[in-house]
Amino acid sequence: MQTDLVAALDIGGTKIAGGLVDGRGTILVRAQRPTPAQEDGDTVMRAVEEVIGELAASPLWGRARAIGIGSAGPVDASAGTVSPVNVPGWRGFPLVERVRAAAGDLPVTLIGDGVAITAAEHWQGAARGHDNALCMVVSTGVGGGLVLDGRLRPGPTGNAGHIGHISVDLDGDPCPCGSRGCVERLASGPNIARRALENGWRPGPDGDDSAVAVAAAARAGDPVAVASFERAAQALAAAIASAASLMEIDIAVIGGGVGTAGEVLFGPLRKILDEYATLSFVRRLTVVPARMGTDAGLVGAAAAVLAGGAAAAGV
Amino acid sequence: MQTDLVAALDIGGTKIAGGLVDGRGTILVRAQRPTPAQEDGDTVMRAVEEVIGELAASPLWGRARAIGIGSAGPVDASAGTVSPVNVPGWRGFPLVERVRAAAGDLPVTLIGDGVAITAAEHWQGAARGHDNALCMVVSTGVGGGLVLDGRLRPGPTGNAGHIGHISVDLDGDPCPCGSRGCVERLASGPNIARRALENGWRPGPDGDDSAVAVAAAARAGDPVAVASFERAAQALAAAIASAASLMEIDIAVIGGGVGTAGEVLFGPLRKILDEYATLSFVRRLTVVPARMGTDAGLVGAAAAVLAGGAAAAGV
Repeated sequence: MQTDLVAALDIGGTKIAGGLVDGRGTILVRAQRPTPAQEDGDTVMRAVEEVIGELAASPLWGRARAIGIGSAGPVDASAGTVSPVNVPGWRGFPLVERVRAAAGDLPVTLIGDGVAITAAEHWQGAARGHDNALCMVVSTGVGGGLVLDGRLRPGPTGNAGHIGHISVDLDGDPCPCGSRGCVERLASGPNIARRALENGWRPGPDGDDSAVAVAAAARAGDPVAVASFERAAQALAAAIASAASLMEIDIAVIGGGVGTAGEVLFGPLRKILDEYATLSFVRRLTVVPARMGTDAGLVGAAAAVLAGGAAAAGV
Repeated sequence: MQTDLVAALDIGGTKIAGGLVDGRGTILVRAQRPTPAQEDGDTVMRAVEEVIGELAASPLWGRARAIGIGSAGPVDASAGTVSPVNVPGWRGFPLVERVRAAAGDLPVTLIGDGVAITAAEHWQGAARGHDNALCMVVSTGVGGGLVLDGRLRPGPTGNAGHIGHISVDLDGDPCPCGSRGCVERLASGPNIARRALENGWRPGPDGDDSAVAVAAAARAGDPVAVASFERAAQALAAAIASAASLMEIDIAVIGGGVGTAGEVLFGPLRKILDEYATLSFVRRLTVVPARMGTDAGLVGAAAAVLAGGAAAAGV
């Protein structure tokens, strides 16, 4: 497939991005629409079809041999369906079938967005050269994906690596997912901000009370802001150490908005990780920021096709 | 390798068992020695050599094509060494090299004992037919192993599936491993007994204050004994749900002494698991008792060789 292309789709709650991607991961053609996330399912699908139509209008379309989709989850790669939390019109929506129909019967591979980003980081980013890696997206939610024994490992339904909803505090706060003490409840951007506000941190004159503002306050030495990032780092450290004990990963890559907070996050994270990652075979574990930026979803959806490492929805 | 045999070794802190195992998992010849666990490393190795010597004296030895070792951990399959917690004379002990020398240069495969038991349960036990499984041993310690995408997945050093030392309580009690709130600290037999005693349970006239006695008291309705098993079940449930969210396993198999406690454990475990396993793709998760009994270590060490699914120490 050296000189052929992959049509990649990155479907999220805010935008639907598409691209024609070559064997080196270069995006040669791009298309994008806002996600009409609150509309009915067919309306959302129409936006996907417009993105595909724009790609298909390119003279390069004839070289596309397959389609890779990374979608907000949960997805069900074995059934070819998606049920993104933030797109209520899609529940068990037959995305693989509809995309194939819209794209002239090209084969379609579906994975979750966390898995797509992992494929990108392993191919060309911070996990390159690592045979056993956990890649995470820490932003509004917390997601992830796995590379095991050198290959992307999406799992039977394309959701493996879902580290945001593992419990690191079995008696802890209820999580919207129904469980308790989930990593997302302790470490997501909104929860970093909520905890800082609850403990007395106040935003500056611009009124920005997001995790980005908490990170800025932490860098300036505000102890409540520092403590909120330290608690997030503790939750991430416990979860990453668990993943390493279970799967012998040797690197954790952290992307997403919180992942760009820099030393405010990674300083305490590296320190606390040593406290939880105690077994001999996990002591080499490292944790680093993601490198692939905003194109990771598209590049990763293409990578999953090129690597043949995706789940059963290659139809 | 249909008509050939595997020489299997199961090395623990109490005994060293050996067997010649055929392609159906039948143990045709057996040998066993107590582990001189407090002696120096060469003395322990001598017991292993005696087991091998007894197997080699069998007329069937000529059909043995390879050796599989399941050893108490930590092991390092990539280096061929073992450092069992309960055998202080072996620290980084070159077990693969020494066994190969003792066994006439047959190829040797080394895995951890939790991985060996997993291989056995997947081959012929409770995980048979499941492509994604976590098998656990819950007794004095808590260990385990993984089957992913239909294959044993020992990890680079042969320790993957080490669920006993994942933290489900990030602010919890210190664990001897150095971390906090580990599953083992909450769910092992000695900790089930300790918690019952701390909360006022008292042993009967025979003085037995083990987890077996706590299980008997729980079956008789003692509320403190019931509560201690429920707390163990909660820790196991949180950990199993985490493993499912991370790896899309669909079954957890529990063996070891605590695993034989029956409904005292499995009743609350199944109920509480529903509270932690909330994501759509983990809802089919089931949890069952192990089936392979005391030969699991030997059969599993043979299975790892036959499946070719073991780590890098096939030398």
